[in-house]
Amino acid sequence: MPRAFAIVMAGGSGTRFWPLSRAARPKQLLPLGAGGETLLSATVRRAADVVGRDAVLVVTSEALGAAVLEDTGLPPENVLCEPVGRNTAPCIGWAATRVARVDPGAVCAVLPADHHIADEAGYGAVLRRAIDAASEGDIVTVGIRPTRPETGYGYIEVGDAIDDGVHRVRRFVEKPNRARAEQLLASGQVLWNSGMFFFTARRMLDAIDEHLPGLGTSLHAFLDAPAGDEPALVREQFGSLPSVSIDHGVMEKVSDVAVVPGDFGWSDLGSFASAWELADKDAAGNVLDEATVAIDVRGSYVRAPEGKLVALVGVHDLVVVDTGDALLVMPRERAEDVKLVVERLKARGETKL
Amino acid sequence: MPRAFAIVMAGGSGTRFWPLSRAARPKQLLPLGAGGETLLSATVRRAADVVGRDAVLVVTSEALGAAVLEDTGLPPENVLCEPVGRNTAPCIGWAATRVARVDPGAVCAVLPADHHIADEAGYGAVLRRAIDAASEGDIVTVGIRPTRPETGYGYIEVGDAIDDGVHRVRRFVEKPNRARAEQLLASGQVLWNSGMFFFTARRMLDAIDEHLPGLGTSLHAFLDAPAGDEPALVREQFGSLPSVSIDHGVMEKVSDVAVVPGDFGWSDLGSFASAWELADKDAAGNVLDEATVAIDVRGSYVRAPEGKLVALVGVHDLVVVDTGDALLVMPRERAEDVKLVVERLKARGETKL
Repeated sequence: MPRAFAIVMAGGSGTRFWPLSRAARPKQLLPLGAGGETLLSATVRRAADVVGRDAVLVVTSEALGAAVLEDTGLPPENVLCEPVGRNTAPCIGWAATRVARVDPGAVCAVLPADHHIADEAGYGAVLRRAIDAASEGDIVTVGIRPTRPETGYGYIEVGDAIDDGVHRVRRFVEKPNRARAEQLLASGQVLWNSGMFFFTARRMLDAIDEHLPGLGTSLHAFLDAPAGDEPALVREQFGSLPSVSIDHGVMEKVSDVAVVPGDFGWSDLGSFASAWELADKDAAGNVLDEATVAIDVRGSYVRAPEGKLVALVGVHDLVVVDTGDALLVMPRERAEDVKLVVERLKARGETKL
Repeated sequence: MPRAFAIVMAGGSGTRFWPLSRAARPKQLLPLGAGGETLLSATVRRAADVVGRDAVLVVTSEALGAAVLEDTGLPPENVLCEPVGRNTAPCIGWAATRVARVDPGAVCAVLPADHHIADEAGYGAVLRRAIDAASEGDIVTVGIRPTRPETGYGYIEVGDAIDDGVHRVRRFVEKPNRARAEQLLASGQVLWNSGMFFFTARRMLDAIDEHLPGLGTSLHAFLDAPAGDEPALVREQFGSLPSVSIDHGVMEKVSDVAVVPGDFGWSDLGSFASAWELADKDAAGNVLDEATVAIDVRGSYVRAPEGKLVALVGVHDLVVVDTGDALLVMPRERAEDVKLVVERLKARGETKL
């Protein structure tokens, strides 16, 4: 396999798992994986299986740096803390300069830190295939075979095969409405955009030079600075970088994007409803703590602090999440509406919660 | 008005308000009254308005003695602590001996500590009427005009009027099934048994002598002992008294029971569903803490510790009670089934909760 690094993007601060997720403990740091593993730890572990642990970089915010170090156990030089969030293009570009310092021809595998993978062997095989394809100079993405007309994901229209298990991307499609999602699914020619990208450091820096020249200038300054001076330079300049996503800023503008279709039990684990879907359930379809008293309860998801006794009577398809200082109760089908709660709290000025 | 004492029965340990109610904090000590007043404090206050504060006695268990003193602010000599619970006949009989020491002809007004009264002026008027009637030697009860075929209460069949606002009791009817309750309601000749009783101390002690002679012997020993020796004697003998209710042991056996019909917004506040019914509700029919975030929520009842943020989305007619160490979630219509939770906990040996 070509030399490769993983760039795990772990700066997110999602709100769809409130009250479990907070500013100081976003989704990727929640123990939502099997056996209580955090999603970030699981991502690092899976990446290390493919590229080796020393070649796993995590990009996060300064506020989360200490928590990321503790959670992953990675050496400090492998954790890149953005002084301020500027969306994914500066994040990925900066990480690519770190890889380019070592080997401009090495492949970067950009991996979101907060996804759930059921089939880890299948996932590893797809990563290896994508790394191979990227080593030849293409920018490569991984597309997930869709199973439903999901409106929460972007789609990729698949073009001709260019190699075994590798296709040309015809077009990226933004999150569709329901009718469009059904059309796309029926076409049989689309995949879900997994948000994973593969490219050599050199290829990405060239693409940024071409499509985001302002960002490119700063990245070259980062790359050319003596290693000891780079952190201060990044801290000084990062806030003035353009805030732009890698999708809009680069991916949609380059013509030679390839896609490796994958089918490895992927989920972006976007809400408590999907956490319930992915978890082991009892005979009544419940995800409960051992101590929970449940009488006539079906299809429900309960999280509570250790030692807290939760008793449910006669409820079904309910989400109950207690964090000690906050409690959320809602039907599973309203799980996306946690964001309304967070908005309400922000409007009240309750930033702590 | 004739000389009268109130005997407030506050030894109960109900489970229908779990997890708010615990062994150490039963229903009568919960702040379920208006403005956070405990039901016991409200009962003592209303009784004091009628008989004077010095004439209010509270009978409770030794375990609850300190909490009752703190809650009511009564002097210690007004709080009688049973060494062990022996049902209501020994409880009332003992309290009657305390009244008889002062004045055997004084009326005792026996009042449960855990009822809710909406119309306090109407309640006071009924108590005065019942005290008047009892001062002439009858045993008097208060009957509530029924508003629905309730199966949770005992009923009183009303006989001829014997005075203004006072009727003979024809018969006590135990808690009926639904069909029988509907018959009773349709008859127009019944009242709910409120569990309030009025009698002179002498009359009750005579009735106990006649119908529960074993208990009578002990009560006379309590009454005849020097005041300083009585507590030790009670502590020594109370456990050997017969465990029998005043209803079965006395009321159903005496022929001259009278009833004063009352209509003063009475509720025995038997569950979270009735707590919801009696509480002030917002426009959506919810009883919420001020800090609760409620989005598309109707008819729900929320209790949580101060400072805890509760967020509800898309639920209706739900009860959510959080005590910090325990959390209960159930539909209002299942409120009676809290007892199933308590049974489950007892079976697990979790006596603390």
